[in-house]
Amino acid sequence: MDRVQVIELKETILEDNDRDAQKLREELKERGVFYLNVMSSPGSGKTTTILQILERLSKEFRVGVMEADIDSSVDALKIQEAGYPAVQLHTGGMCHLDAQMSRQGMAGLPEDTQVVILENVGNLVCPAEFDTGAVLNLVILSVPEGDDKPLKYPLMFEKCSVAVINKIDAMPAFDFDLEKASAAILRRNPEMKIYPVCAASGEGVDALCEELSGRIRSWLG
Amino acid sequence: MDRVQVIELKETILEDNDRDAQKLREELKERGVFYLNVMSSPGSGKTTTILQILERLSKEFRVGVMEADIDSSVDALKIQEAGYPAVQLHTGGMCHLDAQMSRQGMAGLPEDTQVVILENVGNLVCPAEFDTGAVLNLVILSVPEGDDKPLKYPLMFEKCSVAVINKIDAMPAFDFDLEKASAAILRRNPEMKIYPVCAASGEGVDALCEELSGRIRSWLG
Repeated sequence: MDRVQVIELKETILEDNDRDAQKLREELKERGVFYLNVMSSPGSGKTTTILQILERLSKEFRVGVMEADIDSSVDALKIQEAGYPAVQLHTGGMCHLDAQMSRQGMAGLPEDTQVVILENVGNLVCPAEFDTGAVLNLVILSVPEGDDKPLKYPLMFEKCSVAVINKIDAMPAFDFDLEKASAAILRRNPEMKIYPVCAASGEGVDALCEELSGRIRSWLG
Repeated sequence: MDRVQVIELKETILEDNDRDAQKLREELKERGVFYLNVMSSPGSGKTTTILQILERLSKEFRVGVMEADIDSSVDALKIQEAGYPAVQLHTGGMCHLDAQMSRQGMAGLPEDTQVVILENVGNLVCPAEFDTGAVLNLVILSVPEGDDKPLKYPLMFEKCSVAVINKIDAMPAFDFDLEKASAAILRRNPEMKIYPVCAASGEGVDALCEELSGRIRSWLG
């Protein structure tokens, strides 16, 4: 597997993406597939975090990754090189994925995949507006971005149930207040589970993966 | 000026934003106004960079800032507290500004403003797709985001003429190769002027502002 499968997504103008996303979730429930949608700004460490998650979840589940980008295949290559099934989705300039596009991507993964992880397009705005059909939406905020970001991108933090604060090793170099960031996140979403991690070293990822495993087990039943 | 003027933008579905943006540019040329559109990911240091630019450009020109955000007014407050005219634009969930929205914002700045700086919504995707009518488009890429971003967000780097690489002081802590980043930028746009800076300390901002001043003088005639 040294070459990456690239899927050029076709946009289908669906009248009701919300309904389609709900339908996809029901299909996934029936097929025993957990779908995790990972969103963040460009450069927050989505790929590195996903690699850490894969290392832990793959001990218990059959995992696969969909890498969505406007262009390039660098991320899917990284995932494949680490030994996990991955497809590269090209959105053709689009800034988000919807349920129909998720379906097109999943068709490129092994049929017996139990946990599908989507690395959405790097964007804190638009991906939050489109239900992909995911069972769980996860947002990554990285320390260099600043602790005020939850105030500026409210919908993203409202739509996600798990927030990862990444690059905590860089905290001394940046004016980032973990308590302030957490308070801002909880103001947007009082139910949010917050996990500070350093994806580069793996610090904090075990706790995050316990949360994820619990949710996956309960979904797969 | 301790309170910030907030303008709730109204979306006008214009058939041809490109034509409207061209019209706005012609109007600005006639009125002697230079319009600078600053774009980047969330947390790349747009506000800090703009503050450094203001400090230098305000010695020669009458400056004003439009801060576009989906929510919150923290950025416009910062600019005002530093002593410069600023308006906060709320995009109502929208991920970009267009020419008509630029007009609505400019109406909130002093009439004799010569240089209008727009801090666009933090997003490397959508703002590149909409011509705001700006005379100059500038993109900020910050070191913690990674040197591969120009490959992933091609349109942004094609549409801009000046690229600022910010947070160069953080280079030792991140796996960021300035030459690799520059090469990726130039691959997208061989004409790009690239300025590595540390906006927090002001390092490198003088050279950037010489570039900007030259362009402003030539536009104002």
